[in-house]
Amino acid sequence: MAEYFKNVPKIKYEGKDSDNPLAFKYYNPDEVIGGKTMKEHLRFAVAYWHTYQGTGSDPFGPGTAVRPWDNISDPMELAKAKVAANFELCEKLGVPFFCFHDRDIAPEASTLRETNKRLDEIVALIKDYMKTSSVKLLWGTTNAFSNPRFVHGASTSPNADVFAYAAAQVKKAMEITLELGGQNYVFWGGREGYETLLNTDMELELDNMGRFLGMAVSYAKEIGFEGQLLIEPKPKEPTKHQYDFDTATVIGFLRTYGLENYFKMNIEANHATLAAHTFQHELRVSRINGMLGSIDANQGDLLLGWDTDQFPTNIYDTTLAMYEVLKAGGFTTGGLNFDSKVRRGSFEPVDLFYAHIAGMDAFAKGLKIAYKMVSDGKFDKFINERYESYKSGIGRDIVNGEVGFRELEKYALELNEIKNVSGRQEVLEAMLNKYILED
Amino acid sequence: MAEYFKNVPKIKYEGKDSDNPLAFKYYNPDEVIGGKTMKEHLRFAVAYWHTYQGTGSDPFGPGTAVRPWDNISDPMELAKAKVAANFELCEKLGVPFFCFHDRDIAPEASTLRETNKRLDEIVALIKDYMKTSSVKLLWGTTNAFSNPRFVHGASTSPNADVFAYAAAQVKKAMEITLELGGQNYVFWGGREGYETLLNTDMELELDNMGRFLGMAVSYAKEIGFEGQLLIEPKPKEPTKHQYDFDTATVIGFLRTYGLENYFKMNIEANHATLAAHTFQHELRVSRINGMLGSIDANQGDLLLGWDTDQFPTNIYDTTLAMYEVLKAGGFTTGGLNFDSKVRRGSFEPVDLFYAHIAGMDAFAKGLKIAYKMVSDGKFDKFINERYESYKSGIGRDIVNGEVGFRELEKYALELNEIKNVSGRQEVLEAMLNKYILED
Amino acid sequence: MAEYFKNVPKIKYEGKDSDNPLAFKYYNPDEVIGGKTMKEHLRFAVAYWHTYQGTGSDPFGPGTAVRPWDNISDPMELAKAKVAANFELCEKLGVPFFCFHDRDIAPEASTLRETNKRLDEIVALIKDYMKTSSVKLLWGTTNAFSNPRFVHGASTSPNADVFAYAAAQVKKAMEITLELGGQNYVFWGGREGYETLLNTDMELELDNMGRFLGMAVSYAKEIGFEGQLLIEPKPKEPTKHQYDFDTATVIGFLRTYGLENYFKMNIEANHATLAAHTFQHELRVSRINGMLGSIDANQGDLLLGWDTDQFPTNIYDTTLAMYEVLKAGGFTTGGLNFDSKVRRGSFEPVDLFYAHIAGMDAFAKGLKIAYKMVSDGKFDKFINERYESYKSGIGRDIVNGEVGFRELEKYALELNEIKNVSGRQEVLEAMLNKYILED
Amino acid sequence: MAEYFKNVPKIKYEGKDSDNPLAFKYYNPDEVIGGKTMKEHLRFAVAYWHTYQGTGSDPFGPGTAVRPWDNISDPMELAKAKVAANFELCEKLGVPFFCFHDRDIAPEASTLRETNKRLDEIVALIKDYMKTSSVKLLWGTTNAFSNPRFVHGASTSPNADVFAYAAAQVKKAMEITLELGGQNYVFWGGREGYETLLNTDMELELDNMGRFLGMAVSYAKEIGFEGQLLIEPKPKEPTKHQYDFDTATVIGFLRTYGLENYFKMNIEANHATLAAHTFQHELRVSRINGMLGSIDANQGDLLLGWDTDQFPTNIYDTTLAMYEVLKAGGFTTGGLNFDSKVRRGSFEPVDLFYAHIAGMDAFAKGLKIAYKMVSDGKFDKFINERYESYKSGIGRDIVNGEVGFRELEKYALELNEIKNVSGRQEVLEAMLNKYILED
Repeated sequence: MAEYFKNVPKIKYEGKDSDNPLAFKYYNPDEVIGGKTMKEHLRFAVAYWHTYQGTGSDPFGPGTAVRPWDNISDPMELAKAKVAANFELCEKLGVPFFCFHDRDIAPEASTLRETNKRLDEIVALIKDYMKTSSVKLLWGTTNAFSNPRFVHGASTSPNADVFAYAAAQVKKAMEITLELGGQNYVFWGGREGYETLLNTDMELELDNMGRFLGMAVSYAKEIGFEGQLLIEPKPKEPTKHQYDFDTATVIGFLRTYGLENYFKMNIEANHATLAAHTFQHELRVSRINGMLGSIDANQGDLLLGWDTDQFPTNIYDTTLAMYEVLKAGGFTTGGLNFDSKVRRGSFEPVDLFYAHIAGMDAFAKGLKIAYKMVSDGKFDKFINERYESYKSGIGRDIVNGEVGFRELEKYALELNEIKNVSGRQEVLEAMLNKYILED
Repeated sequence: MAEYFKNVPKIKYEGKDSDNPLAFKYYNPDEVIGGKTMKEHLRFAVAYWHTYQGTGSDPFGPGTAVRPWDNISDPMELAKAKVAANFELCEKLGVPFFCFHDRDIAPEASTLRETNKRLDEIVALIKDYMKTSSVKLLWGTTNAFSNPRFVHGASTSPNADVFAYAAAQVKKAMEITLELGGQNYVFWGGREGYETLLNTDMELELDNMGRFLGMAVSYAKEIGFEGQLLIEPKPKEPTKHQYDFDTATVIGFLRTYGLENYFKMNIEANHATLAAHTFQHELRVSRINGMLGSIDANQGDLLLGWDTDQFPTNIYDTTLAMYEVLKAGGFTTGGLNFDSKVRRGSFEPVDLFYAHIAGMDAFAKGLKIAYKMVSDGKFDKFINERYESYKSGIGRDIVNGEVGFRELEKYALELNEIKNVSGRQEVLEAMLNKYILED
Repeated sequence: MAEYFKNVPKIKYEGKDSDNPLAFKYYNPDEVIGGKTMKEHLRFAVAYWHTYQGTGSDPFGPGTAVRPWDNISDPMELAKAKVAANFELCEKLGVPFFCFHDRDIAPEASTLRETNKRLDEIVALIKDYMKTSSVKLLWGTTNAFSNPRFVHGASTSPNADVFAYAAAQVKKAMEITLELGGQNYVFWGGREGYETLLNTDMELELDNMGRFLGMAVSYAKEIGFEGQLLIEPKPKEPTKHQYDFDTATVIGFLRTYGLENYFKMNIEANHATLAAHTFQHELRVSRINGMLGSIDANQGDLLLGWDTDQFPTNIYDTTLAMYEVLKAGGFTTGGLNFDSKVRRGSFEPVDLFYAHIAGMDAFAKGLKIAYKMVSDGKFDKFINERYESYKSGIGRDIVNGEVGFRELEKYALELNEIKNVSGRQEVLEAMLNKYILED
Repeated sequence: MAEYFKNVPKIKYEGKDSDNPLAFKYYNPDEVIGGKTMKEHLRFAVAYWHTYQGTGSDPFGPGTAVRPWDNISDPMELAKAKVAANFELCEKLGVPFFCFHDRDIAPEASTLRETNKRLDEIVALIKDYMKTSSVKLLWGTTNAFSNPRFVHGASTSPNADVFAYAAAQVKKAMEITLELGGQNYVFWGGREGYETLLNTDMELELDNMGRFLGMAVSYAKEIGFEGQLLIEPKPKEPTKHQYDFDTATVIGFLRTYGLENYFKMNIEANHATLAAHTFQHELRVSRINGMLGSIDANQGDLLLGWDTDQFPTNIYDTTLAMYEVLKAGGFTTGGLNFDSKVRRGSFEPVDLFYAHIAGMDAFAKGLKIAYKMVSDGKFDKFINERYESYKSGIGRDIVNGEVGFRELEKYALELNEIKNVSGRQEVLEAMLNKYILED
């Protein structure tokens, strides 16, 4: 069997003093933290699209990536090579999962029927690999945004044929996700939004999107797909406005269409910041609504206005993300999928490894720090004390719904002075630094 | 009775050729457009806070405003002077409404009881003025964000005493709004949000905000307030994150707490853009959810990152806003409240008139253009044709819920080619220009 | 000769009441305004790259554009077809100029020598067309950013071979621009910037960019190119930081390297707003430095963070841009180049015409309004009066350099009260609206 | 003598394991790093305005700060109390410097003459304190933006009297800075910019600003002020556009007016990010131009659009800032001035200490990490190798100015293939993490 990354060894943990760029400094997969191994906590996944389909193209130039499969011209042979490369790369990195769009793993043919046949062929091949590999499918999804037919959207297209086509495509993608043991199915509506309100019937589009997701829920039941359905919020890009703007918007949408019990969130760091939220904010909103499903691990550049999908290396972000994950009880079906691409200037094959190692180490260290923060309980203690007025007296009455405006006015009129306490933001930031720098 | 703006005459309509800066060029209050006068369509309101309380201070310097009441030092005398000034200014401008926060009209005293007494005194005075004036109250609201007691929020404060105090304050504000015939009551939670998640129990805070609004609904019923309850979304400023981020977030929040039938939106243009939406977008989301209540008319500077609250003069914005209002059937209890402040450099009293005239003319012209757009029906026609595939065949089946993924796949497999049509954004923008430049 | 846009007639001026989307409503090329025709004032140009090379691809999908030359597969045949299409489109639109990058007009071959031969072949063809057409070349430029060899920059590449290659490329591009009578030569350094300071020697890169431009100046002299050299500022995208951030940065750069007498600016609207400036700001900075050379006419979406390159339809922007152009004395060698692309959803050939018409009409109307503003002189009068204190007394002494801190302190100590006057921003905005809506 | 912060002890270094919020974990002032103590490297300063004048007010509410001098009502007594508090706070923190605006230390009186007398009185008091304290003045500056007379700017005001007044004010401020042994004098032109181009003569305003700074240079010479003159760039806020947008703009401005030899930069982190640059970028641009003078240490929130002036706690920012400082050879007259304010919610006196400790520790740790990065030389080595093609052959010829376009074309035509190397951004980010997490 072809080995595509011949000069790259299996990546090992060498500890923080190692200078070897092809070794982990923090990610020690079998190290146990709070009863689970790091591998179980983090549930890393490789993103098929960036890693095997990504070329480094951008709006100002074509791809720069040099890849070991560049000499293969037949589309199906190329697709098969990438399957092999995927298992090789995941195994060398010790990444237990991968994720894909239907169109990542098999190229479209001239008809949907033929395209589905190609998919079947590749799915069979992946199943073969899975027999001898421990690498699994974290989630599958559909690319219903790249092909020109989706120029005006998929389930929100003004063209009913496109809605139908997208439905057929999702149906098939759910089937292959089930077939491959995928633990989740993700919806990211790349062109579900609008470019200008001047030509848009927003109400019909949103209703149709609701109908579409409702059909997906029914079909998942019908075929016995027991994985988690996930929605991935994003505010803009490619469309001017994406309907799944952020977590709060998606939750509101789901409630409007009675779908809130069937979906959780797949939170992407860079999508959070494009929506003017921190990554932690989006995770927190998901968590307190019981909807933290999975994570698309990357980072954006807050001084740039587009989705840069950089590999995550900011230790604050990885720490606070893992803090939210731990407070949510850890991942169940979800995981940390590297929806990240090497920079256009990092075009050599080995950069794929360097970049994943950088991201895995950043999350591994973030996990360790976050675990210490959670188990020490200092932040929890601070917050508990800060809100203790709601545990007795008038506060408890408020929380228990035992008072209304009349009773509260009566109480307030008798208050002499209200005593507030500093929020201590600077102390808490210094405390966070201490965890990060000393762990 | 004192006349505060002695050199300013009653503002009249002189038509578009007038060079008189103290005349309307487009706002002709009694001109009938589609069966209603411009005055009835636009329902302008003056914002008490900016117009009488605003001083032109900013984070880098104190106020610059020169006002005819600057020589009054006694707080209650000053408050009374402003009542007089308000009726004079509204009448001279021909603005039929005003809006206020409780603390705008009467200064706080050392106790809540005493503060309420002051409020009562000013409310009585306003009622007196109303007997002989046609000027009415569009809406009242509470300022539960300026006083240091609200440093960590009002209904979302970690301090239950603050929650109680805010409740008492809203109770009183609702009572005086009722007393003065206010047609709506607005909630804008200036500090209902967080500064840092490190010290925040977001779940409890959101639950408490839900409880608070629930109490408000009950109390409104109890006292027979039949005006509309409104929520005003804003994403940030003063807090890092405001819980009422945007319309979609607020609707989701209301649904979560079962409050969606009791509230509509008060959409502010500058809040929309701070949330990375267009003004029209926020109005559209409100409209299709049946929640377009009222408007805070101003404009922001999209190259600046804070709430500039400029007087609205952009004809695109006023046109598209009135387009949404007309498509919603026009205002019922709501109106166009100028939540706008003269620039710090526009510090003379007459600038208050110049600025309102600029805003009123911009909206009057916007109304005329929008009315023509609606009655011509060209945009509607374009959109109807664009979505016509949902009116028959597979599209109708989708809309009627008669098909699922299986049926759609069957249909899609038989599709030969999908024909999309250009979205014609540039044509539509040119068409909009034609309406704006030729009306 | 092939006609590529068979169903599109020559576009005519029909006046503002026309409903014909293939007619001009405002652009009447031979209409005289202040002694020059509209055509002479506006000097429109078609951008080769967007119009003939653009496909509608974006980071989330390939091209959607349907073009009449889609069936031509041979690269040189395709290049020739586009030459024909360019002359046809420009003539039908009545656009007097076009602009190109070297790589737009002829495809790269496997060697630079061969690539240059291809260029020569196409240049000869263009010259042939020019014999019978009035369409001219406004400016040429080099694409030294798309090809992967420029992955780390061109003149700022860490690889000296790339610097040399870029030099050879610019040399040739200057030669063909001269050959074709181009009136300007533009530098836009698509990858002249950095992705991360961690790997960047900024000092060397800037020095090299200075050296490169110095060589260009020498070579232009050497070959007798008398057109204007232009630099086009842009702050970011594709690189995280582009060295030509904005006009002020470029002017500072030119002064540092002693190049300020050889270059003017090519200001692009969307680049201005990406740098957090208005379009007018960048034009103003250029103008007062005597460096307003030419304009890349488009518009961005201020709520999106990337270069959308939309066709310019905002009447405020076109008016204020033409105001600056008129105040600068009008274009000399420069013009209004539509560096604009039809939206991905506007994929039909006719959309190319619709979009140019929309942009041309918006600038034609903007010109008319701006001309009236300039000739009425009301804004000038306001500004002159506002600064009149510098025309006599202490102000004149300041301007004439006759006083220093000692004299000014003496003067200030005797000042009783300083009288400032309102800046009247709202009045001026209303005045601008009056010009826009009534012209 | 009054002790204002009675419950706060002298802050000591306790090392990284300390849980005492009133101790340093990283800042060990006498620890020697590369031949200098941490104290000498970092040269911390307290900002008078935020620490003693700041109240926590914001556009939505008045101050919340509780301060030990709140009971003093006489303005001059209050000013004297703050002098005492300043020396106490600096000494307890072990901060060797402070910085002020003229109006911070003494309140304005009704005339300039009287205001100057007040200044003299406070300056004399500060000199007294300095006799027995080691605390020194890092720099002085002028507040020529808060008072309403500066509503339209100071040196760029349309009112020549205001220019004169500002000149008198700067004259005096330079004198007292000299008197107090200030090591630098800073220019930050709070209102030197414009609100709208509709009322602005930008050319005159910039010329006047140039004249003003020229006078300042002359006067500094005249009085023998040998400290460094500094300019502090900021892009916007309070004005829509500030003329000192960023470092590149300021350098260009200085060159235009022949002032480039007299000024260096005072770089503020939050101003950098408001201009869409990283803090490190602004420092780098200053450094390679030999203009890195001093630093205003704080941090902004990149998801908010205004100057939040938070205490700096981000270890990436402090590390990369100190990296630039070390590469520039360390501070000479400059230092790290905490232009930072405690959050409005951190209103207790002790928060002033907590916040400074957080910032000092973050910079101390940043210094240690940066020193290791510099002395290890790994980043330098990477960069040197990356650009080595400019050290021989054609690259050296380019750098030495020995070739032009002709020679480069000749060279390029013979090039077979250009070999680029990955920029290794992800590896470098992981390397940076290793330094940060392991130092």
